[in-house]
Amino acid sequence: MGGEAIKVHGSVLSPAVLRVFACLYEKDLSSAEYVPVNMATGDHKKEPFLTLNPFGQVPGFEDGDLKLFESRAINQYIVQAYGDKGNQLNFHDDPKKNALVYVWMEVEAQRFDPAASKLLFELCIKPILGMTTNDAVVQEYEAKLGEILDVYEARLKQSNYLAADTFTLADLNHIPAINYLMGSKAKAVFEARPHVNAWCADILARPAWSKVLELQKKQS
Amino acid sequence: MGGEAIKVHGSVLSPAVLRVFACLYEKDLSSAEYVPVNMATGDHKKEPFLTLNPFGQVPGFEDGDLKLFESRAINQYIVQAYGDKGNQLNFHDDPKKNALVYVWMEVEAQRFDPAASKLLFELCIKPILGMTTNDAVVQEYEAKLGEILDVYEARLKQSNYLAADTFTLADLNHIPAINYLMGSKAKAVFEARPHVNAWCADILARPAWSKVLELQKKQS
Repeated sequence: MGGEAIKVHGSVLSPAVLRVFACLYEKDLSSAEYVPVNMATGDHKKEPFLTLNPFGQVPGFEDGDLKLFESRAINQYIVQAYGDKGNQLNFHDDPKKNALVYVWMEVEAQRFDPAASKLLFELCIKPILGMTTNDAVVQEYEAKLGEILDVYEARLKQSNYLAADTFTLADLNHIPAINYLMGSKAKAVFEARPHVNAWCADILARPAWSKVLELQKKQS
Repeated sequence: MGGEAIKVHGSVLSPAVLRVFACLYEKDLSSAEYVPVNMATGDHKKEPFLTLNPFGQVPGFEDGDLKLFESRAINQYIVQAYGDKGNQLNFHDDPKKNALVYVWMEVEAQRFDPAASKLLFELCIKPILGMTTNDAVVQEYEAKLGEILDVYEARLKQSNYLAADTFTLADLNHIPAINYLMGSKAKAVFEARPHVNAWCADILARPAWSKVLELQKKQS
């Protein structure tokens, strides 16, 4: 056990919040506290949340007196600060191996996520909100995601995971969006690429991710 | 001197390429080689460039047999691999201080850059290409950038630089876009916020950035 001083403020429907919990559970920081933020009433746009994140987006994060935001930055902090705990998610002492973790983290943030988030909104969030999915947008972004996943397919032919032959933070950061999209018609974009499809099955089967889904179920 | 094994492939007009050179020069890796890529003939979308970056965007980067892409990932590598050289741009041994470098690097990548890049394209690139600037787009993105810079203004009232009281990689990653926009009408968005304006003047005056501008002039 560990992580008693850690609090994650947000909603368990948010992929960014789930991303942070996935990292905490990989690092055996299971005592981290979930603090729900009522986004329906706009509490993320008001104090005290704005003190955690002046941009008013979840998650907000505390570790003792340290306050952080931006899920990918939080995960980098967790991996650096708790290097000796749980699963190793980077190569802190080997800059050349670690460089590929940075590269594929950037690919997730700059290329995969913009396309995946658009599809996730159309296919997973709009139905929850009673809004109508825009099929033209879905088609456009499925094509964009497909082009990105062609590069992933070539990479995953050569390497078990994106940055290395072992699971790293670069893979982890993808999990929440992939978990959502695998429950939608966009799963066909992943299934059409066998190495991508096997990688998705592998990273979604991690015990830490099962724990995140339990938390989500309990708190929803 | 240092960086003899380093090559940066791209164009000196690209903010992402300039971002990498800014980091190399801060770290006194002045021997890094610039390898021009003819983007007008689409060489970045063909081999051998695609072996450096399968997404076909500059820069591509080599350090001996290590091949990388994504400018922000390359800069993280440089800072980690050459920690003992030149200026210190992060807090490698202090996870809590370093966490704020990660946070503000993400803010640059996820919030500042999308708005700044849109303006940069409309105001700086379109005139070079003989295309017409879309004033409605400029107005929309100046407003978006303004909202982001309101948060920067509050932050820079409390802190000399974004992540700390000293210059870090989080500040550095902003320099190329700010340098371009300060030569356009969008500079008013920065000038309207005194702490932001002083910070821009400070980071643009760094000797390493002057060296980058000399390289750009010589190679254009």
